[in-house]
Amino acid sequence: MTTILTNARLATMSPDRPGLGVIENGRVVIDGGRIVAVGAANEIASPAGAEVIDCEGRWVTPGLIDCHTHLVHAGNRAREFEMRLAGASYEEIARAGGGIVSSVRQVREASEAELVSQTLPRLDALIAEGVTTVEVKSGYGLSVEDELKMLRAARQLADKRPVAITTTYLGAHATPADYKGRNRDFIEEIVLPGLKAAHAEELVDAVDGFCEGIAFSPDEMRLVFDAARSLGLPVKLHADQLSNLHGAALAAEYQALSADHLEYTDEDGASAMTRAGTVAVLLPGAYYFIRETKKPPIDLFRKHGTAMALATDCNPGTSPLTSLLLTMNMAATLFHMTVEECLVGVTRNAARALGRLDTVGTIEVGKQADLAIWSVESPAELVYRIGFNPLHQRIWNGHITKGILS
Amino acid sequence: MTTILTNARLATMSPDRPGLGVIENGRVVIDGGRIVAVGAANEIASPAGAEVIDCEGRWVTPGLIDCHTHLVHAGNRAREFEMRLAGASYEEIARAGGGIVSSVRQVREASEAELVSQTLPRLDALIAEGVTTVEVKSGYGLSVEDELKMLRAARQLADKRPVAITTTYLGAHATPADYKGRNRDFIEEIVLPGLKAAHAEELVDAVDGFCEGIAFSPDEMRLVFDAARSLGLPVKLHADQLSNLHGAALAAEYQALSADHLEYTDEDGASAMTRAGTVAVLLPGAYYFIRETKKPPIDLFRKHGTAMALATDCNPGTSPLTSLLLTMNMAATLFHMTVEECLVGVTRNAARALGRLDTVGTIEVGKQADLAIWSVESPAELVYRIGFNPLHQRIWNGHITKGILS
Ligand SMILES: [Zn+2]
Ligand SMILES: [Zn+2]
Repeated sequence: MTTILTNARLATMSPDRPGLGVIENGRVVIDGGRIVAVGAANEIASPAGAEVIDCEGRWVTPGLIDCHTHLVHAGNRAREFEMRLAGASYEEIARAGGGIVSSVRQVREASEAELVSQTLPRLDALIAEGVTTVEVKSGYGLSVEDELKMLRAARQLADKRPVAITTTYLGAHATPADYKGRNRDFIEEIVLPGLKAAHAEELVDAVDGFCEGIAFSPDEMRLVFDAARSLGLPVKLHADQLSNLHGAALAAEYQALSADHLEYTDEDGASAMTRAGTVAVLLPGAYYFIRETKKPPIDLFRKHGTAMALATDCNPGTSPLTSLLLTMNMAATLFHMTVEECLVGVTRNAARALGRLDTVGTIEVGKQADLAIWSVESPAELVYRIGFNPLHQRIWNGHITKGILS
Repeated sequence: MTTILTNARLATMSPDRPGLGVIENGRVVIDGGRIVAVGAANEIASPAGAEVIDCEGRWVTPGLIDCHTHLVHAGNRAREFEMRLAGASYEEIARAGGGIVSSVRQVREASEAELVSQTLPRLDALIAEGVTTVEVKSGYGLSVEDELKMLRAARQLADKRPVAITTTYLGAHATPADYKGRNRDFIEEIVLPGLKAAHAEELVDAVDGFCEGIAFSPDEMRLVFDAARSLGLPVKLHADQLSNLHGAALAAEYQALSADHLEYTDEDGASAMTRAGTVAVLLPGAYYFIRETKKPPIDLFRKHGTAMALATDCNPGTSPLTSLLLTMNMAATLFHMTVEECLVGVTRNAARALGRLDTVGTIEVGKQADLAIWSVESPAELVYRIGFNPLHQRIWNGHITKGILS
């Protein structure tokens, strides 16, 4: 089955072209779910018998990629949000059962099927805005079985919806109550055995951790990263979100796919990331929601040429955000990122942050045919509008699948 | 035709009940587009032959009300947004044709039908989130004919979609180039004649102005407000957004329905508004988009008991926002407003800001049956989530009309 998109204004995101890699009056030929030709109308002939999708002058981008989410979780933390706004202290919220422990409790109580059914509306919200690849982390189970349950639920999402899911093992997300003050024991008795078990079940595409004063130290993260390396798994890191523990440099040392958050990253961290090819994944939703005031060092990333990506960080505690379009607007408004940086950040660089740049993230020959067709007059509109979804059509793996249930 | 909602958790917003006016296991009986009974299941019998809508335990609120928008406009200002992020100065943007003059030019060039067709996608975005009443301002025409054209387009929206539209004449929005430095001439030659002509055509529900150093002075606004008063029309005011010109007190002096923005309002302004019954309409989308740092004085409004409402301020230059749910989240996150303040602010107090509290804004007997049914576990979730639409069903004037085209 061959398909051709005609009358498209392509923002290919190809690194071989400047800026957004624009091809005005462009065409894309799709065969077997792959892109087999891309170019200007006068360069690309319509294959005989091809299905024609007339884009009527609309803009076409690669399908969007949300490269950092905690999409699989149970319940929500609206009560805690409400209490905090009403002036409750952290202690009062903790006494009322709030905080990450409430998410851990609810994930542990939920079945795998319940995790899937609770997650689907969030996934549908992403898909409805042209997202074609979503990274999903574990990290609210914090026992071997519950971490596996989360990852199995994540894998199931790809059977339920026309979308690619990549899974990240985040056993080192927080220390559960019964291991309080014993991070090393928790890592040795739960995190590492959980990683091995999950890997054996082919549930792990990458390994992540939360390196922070309130979570795991750099030395503790090394235990996890060494285990990942021995299994041949790439790593990522929640780094330098609330303080500078030099998490960015640690991630770079392990050739991490990405270091994420990075509000407190310094110049050494940025330059180490660039040398290692580690992508800076910025999460403006969390910055906004927790009312952080320290912005990630965008200027340092620009100076050193560090690749920047954007993601929702969708999670119940610090970023209950399910819009990658809004994420771009927040990056522009709150971090002063340019339109080009935002759009590259949810396509090409997000693919790189998942180690998937060979298959997705740009509109180039040989890539999977993941595309989003937008009813906008310029790509900048995708960043400029707030709370508006101009998606016209979504193509995943060569199939037109705008509808969330198609 | 009689309809009954059963198994509903009602957030009635009735001022006769505390907080959100909650009725657990509630029922609402609708007849002829009006609410004829509201109460707990054991108090309300199902009328014989009534159509039953089983809410299955979902939360039901009044239909949401967006009480301050510039929804009717032409084109967008994404190019200007992009240039600013890329470091362009205001002068460079102005030279490139940006700023409010570009919106004025595009509105003047557009036909009434084009204004309607360009506005419908924005209106549909609001409706899709449970909005049932939308205020729409003129103010980009700045000539008698073009202001009338905007208001006629606004009126047409109500024929095209199942929603109530209220119109506000905002001739005193900005001074067009040919009247530069001659605000009084502009008011006398354009704004006041335009108001009379629009009123004669029954296009005006309220009269508004932009009272600011860069727009109209309090004395100039008095000319407009006096004319409104002589026509028996209520007034509103864009007040104290960028500086304190005592716009809030001016609005109160004229018993304005609302004063809007209010970042720089002082305690005298807040207390004057309370005494006059003038609603404080807060616009966090504009605050966010222009990166304002001075927050409106929420504590003063609380202290004086000033009613607070929220709105999108949807406009191409400073708030390209079409989500009232997101507006609530911004009010909570950026202004620290409580969940109750946010929800009352887009229902009961928004109705008051439009002078429509007698017919909409709460779930009470005698009101128009405008309701939103939500797939959430608590009303707080409506404020807490970011970029997620949990609307299950929307009822406008007694009709189930979730679909934007129904
Ligand atoms: Zn995270
Ligand atoms: Zn306004």
